[in-house]
Amino acid sequence: MENKKKVEVCFSPAIYPAFHNKDAIVVIVDILRATSAIITAFMNGANRIIPVATLEEAKAYKEKGYMVAAERDGIVRDFADFGNSPFNFTRERINGKDIVYSTTNGTQSIMMASNSYRVLIGAYLNLNSIAHYTINKNRDLLILCAGWKNKFNLEDSLFAGALAEIVLKNNNFYTICDSTLASIDLWQMARKDLMVYIDKVAQRHRLKKNKLDDVIEYCHTPDQTNIIPALKEFYLVRLSELESNSGL
Amino acid sequence: MENKKKVEVCFSPAIYPAFHNKDAIVVIVDILRATSAIITAFMNGANRIIPVATLEEAKAYKEKGYMVAAERDGIVRDFADFGNSPFNFTRERINGKDIVYSTTNGTQSIMMASNSYRVLIGAYLNLNSIAHYTINKNRDLLILCAGWKNKFNLEDSLFAGALAEIVLKNNNFYTICDSTLASIDLWQMARKDLMVYIDKVAQRHRLKKNKLDDVIEYCHTPDQTNIIPALKEFYLVRLSELESNSGL
Repeated sequence: MENKKKVEVCFSPAIYPAFHNKDAIVVIVDILRATSAIITAFMNGANRIIPVATLEEAKAYKEKGYMVAAERDGIVRDFADFGNSPFNFTRERINGKDIVYSTTNGTQSIMMASNSYRVLIGAYLNLNSIAHYTINKNRDLLILCAGWKNKFNLEDSLFAGALAEIVLKNNNFYTICDSTLASIDLWQMARKDLMVYIDKVAQRHRLKKNKLDDVIEYCHTPDQTNIIPALKEFYLVRLSELESNSGL
Repeated sequence: MENKKKVEVCFSPAIYPAFHNKDAIVVIVDILRATSAIITAFMNGANRIIPVATLEEAKAYKEKGYMVAAERDGIVRDFADFGNSPFNFTRERINGKDIVYSTTNGTQSIMMASNSYRVLIGAYLNLNSIAHYTINKNRDLLILCAGWKNKFNLEDSLFAGALAEIVLKNNNFYTICDSTLASIDLWQMARKDLMVYIDKVAQRHRLKKNKLDDVIEYCHTPDQTNIIPALKEFYLVRLSELESNSGL
């Protein structure tokens, strides 16, 4: 396995230090809803997305004139332009604009991985594009599930299984990571009827309680775009922009 | 669900703060090999087990005259009496004695849970005894997988699924915890041919490399004893001793 590249899955930002790998492509996953929403924003023409962890930061950006997506417990914050659902990021609203996106779990994960080869935003919406990029670059892959308040969550882990499975079909990649094996097994069990399986995850119940569960099917629809958002300093841009600018 | 008791699984000591529940029965799990070895020691007449996290602590106890189990990378440390395999804890060696057991992952987990209703040592060897105790006490159950250097591991998670499944068959218990649901699904997949499934876990490869994998089948054999080791201050005793002494 000397020349092969490894695939690993990290189930929570709290475990990330045990996985850190500066040579890896790190894929941040927060299916319900941050990474699905961020990809959707780029699909609809957003220029940059600035992820922030706290409402205070979101408010400070708003006061500087940025468009801000921020909600807590399903209620759009009074200073914000709209909430965190992917469906809020319509082309009419956001085309060509810089957007601030408030997400506690997602921002924490994005910033803790910033010292890696690449930090990418992954979801079903760009599943195969992420897989192909990783295979073409022939680099270690670390899939970082944002989880929920540092806990494991099923929807992010299932996506990790889906992505790991595609990449591992390429002979240049291997895994000896138990969380990768578990993710693939869970994915293979769930994929047969994904919406039925997802019905039991805790986050669906949280979203349903706040009438925000209309996004679940959309957030589990694969390959709607080839756009891959990527971290540049402290904000997200299209990967194509980042790699052409850096001469890669 | 107001009066029902919840079942949760924590996949790594690094996530434990998100799960801490002072009213819960916390079951520490380190199937390969610490919790299996500790239960075996009590089965063979050990009086107390003192878990220590570092070799320095183990050595200090040895100098005080304790019998010490300590190895690293498969090699028994020169100051120790024997290594960490359950097979080392024979009745001839340990009957009636206090034993120091060196385990980094296990000790960390045991001590961080010490501020709970009960801290118990669980493995397949006492699976149903742990389940029945939990059901009889009618308290929240938190299964804490010791993992491997803060990473998720499959063998501890499978046991968590086995234990959670038994307890959740009782109507006084419920779960809304994604890691519990994932554990049960993995267990249901693996139980059909457990030794074949276990063949792929990372820890088996580590043990095999050091010729220590002879314990794997034993460590996955259910219900060899009704002894439940439990934490008292900083050492482990039989639960029966603890509860009779405390008047419970």
